[in-house]
Amino acid sequence: MAVTSIAVIGAGAVGSYYGALLARAGHDVRFLLRRDLEAVRENGLQVHSPQGDFRLADARAFSTPQEIGVCDWVICSLKATALDDARALVAPCVAPGTRIVALMNGLGVEQRFAEWFGAERILGAMAFVCINRGDPGVVHHIDYGRLTIGHLTGNAAMLRDLDTLLTAASMDVTASPDLLRARWEKLCWNIPFNGLSVAGGGITTRRILDDPVLRETADRAMREVVTAANADLAAEGSAERLDEDGVLQAMFTQTDAMGPYRTSMVIDFVLGRPLEVEVILGNPARRARALGVSTPTIDTLYALVRAADLGRRGQRDVLSQADVIPN
Amino acid sequence: MAVTSIAVIGAGAVGSYYGALLARAGHDVRFLLRRDLEAVRENGLQVHSPQGDFRLADARAFSTPQEIGVCDWVICSLKATALDDARALVAPCVAPGTRIVALMNGLGVEQRFAEWFGAERILGAMAFVCINRGDPGVVHHIDYGRLTIGHLTGNAAMLRDLDTLLTAASMDVTASPDLLRARWEKLCWNIPFNGLSVAGGGITTRRILDDPVLRETADRAMREVVTAANADLAAEGSAERLDEDGVLQAMFTQTDAMGPYRTSMVIDFVLGRPLEVEVILGNPARRARALGVSTPTIDTLYALVRAADLGRRGQRDVLSQADVIPN
Repeated sequence: MAVTSIAVIGAGAVGSYYGALLARAGHDVRFLLRRDLEAVRENGLQVHSPQGDFRLADARAFSTPQEIGVCDWVICSLKATALDDARALVAPCVAPGTRIVALMNGLGVEQRFAEWFGAERILGAMAFVCINRGDPGVVHHIDYGRLTIGHLTGNAAMLRDLDTLLTAASMDVTASPDLLRARWEKLCWNIPFNGLSVAGGGITTRRILDDPVLRETADRAMREVVTAANADLAAEGSAERLDEDGVLQAMFTQTDAMGPYRTSMVIDFVLGRPLEVEVILGNPARRARALGVSTPTIDTLYALVRAADLGRRGQRDVLSQADVIPN
Repeated sequence: MAVTSIAVIGAGAVGSYYGALLARAGHDVRFLLRRDLEAVRENGLQVHSPQGDFRLADARAFSTPQEIGVCDWVICSLKATALDDARALVAPCVAPGTRIVALMNGLGVEQRFAEWFGAERILGAMAFVCINRGDPGVVHHIDYGRLTIGHLTGNAAMLRDLDTLLTAASMDVTASPDLLRARWEKLCWNIPFNGLSVAGGGITTRRILDDPVLRETADRAMREVVTAANADLAAEGSAERLDEDGVLQAMFTQTDAMGPYRTSMVIDFVLGRPLEVEVILGNPARRARALGVSTPTIDTLYALVRAADLGRRGQRDVLSQADVIPN
């Protein structure tokens, strides 16, 4: 196996986990770290997983992308709320032959990377994984782990290279010939469940599914996503389409089986972190509008989650009891 | 002037205020009271108002409708969340000649009274008033005060009687020949602004109007209300219609001028009280659906405000930080 150099930009739980698998497979993985920098330099990177714990004693930890330097691959696993910072963090690692994988949530992320670095080198990856950061330098992999990957412009050879790289590192990989379809398919779940879990005031998927009115709202939002997805696929010249009833049945069956699941967005919401509202709700809503597709349920969820995000970040006043008690 | 006997069932701020005006005009007004019963019996009922303070030293206060007995008029000013209790509280005051005024919010209230007491005696009233309860036995009238009234089945003579009764007591009254139209017209404001003020996490009308995405959501919700209203008016055989652009322009202009207004529903929300979600959002949404009118924005607001109501009342778990911090 050829040793490949890989920059992991934004090594939170997801980036650290997949980066650690690649490093364990023998690659030269260079992690850009912030919170965990000192801990990883001193004690390495530790992964707890039902598939076996392991420790990278000599994990390469960096505080700037300039120190990381040019790599064969860049995996950008920043939160989408930091997308505006991605260009400056990725650029120092990119030379003409470098390929970039956007391991991030939502719609429209690869397009930004394409603007900055050219579309021909851009791939996208979606993680279906349950994972947490523990103490500095420690990642807890709880369950799942599948990565769906695709190339922005459909370069099959480059997609195969990434598939080979990841699969050889023991990852469960699905290579999608149509990245746009894969992105929308994930949004079919993320838009209703991330949206309602936050707009509903901080609730689990179980609460959404058990409440007939919220469940119906999730159903309607999901149908709007499918309609927008199919319009987008048609507009982009793809022959792929999502099957509305099939998608709905699969998503609801799967989510019913998940128990009281806390979406990534509700966790961010409850902890007061910025929400990935623009890539998960805003970009799909705007794309639908540009295509002339009416998505009032998505639009309403977008408006409310955006308001919640601004409120949590102190950019919007929320009333307290003192504000409404008559004087 | 003939002295008329009037039962005020549910004498919160609104019922106490309008009842006090009727008593001051010389009528035999009998207040059904709970919290303020002892205070009113001891010290009478006091009204502070920019139109002049006054005190009813001998206000007639009762703790049961049986003690109140049969009256010429019953004004039911219960909160709509107590609508299920209204029948038992109103019935003891009703004889064949008694007329009943539902001074309550939302859609479908008079229809319930009609089921219980017969449609021919049912009128509705909507208060456009800013009013608060102060210490027990004290009501603070802040601003406005107009009452819009109508008869459920369009009995013009009975509507005139109520108009005369109220106008003679110094009230600002608009008698609407079409109660249904008047109800929907008020919903054009209440649905978007009550709904978004709560679903947005507890915000004022100013926050809704200043945020372009929330403002657009209010606009879309209001257009859905107009569409549902006109379908309902047509179905009920009314020749009246709401003019969409006219309604929107009037409502937004008026609300822009109101400053950081706290809707009645956001006040209930922040104080942890039950929300009037079924009459303001649920009934209009269900009525639209029965008429085949699509109202996805209203439906979504209904689902979220209903979830917030259940959450506030402890019937729905809301996640806390402890629920989402990795262990």
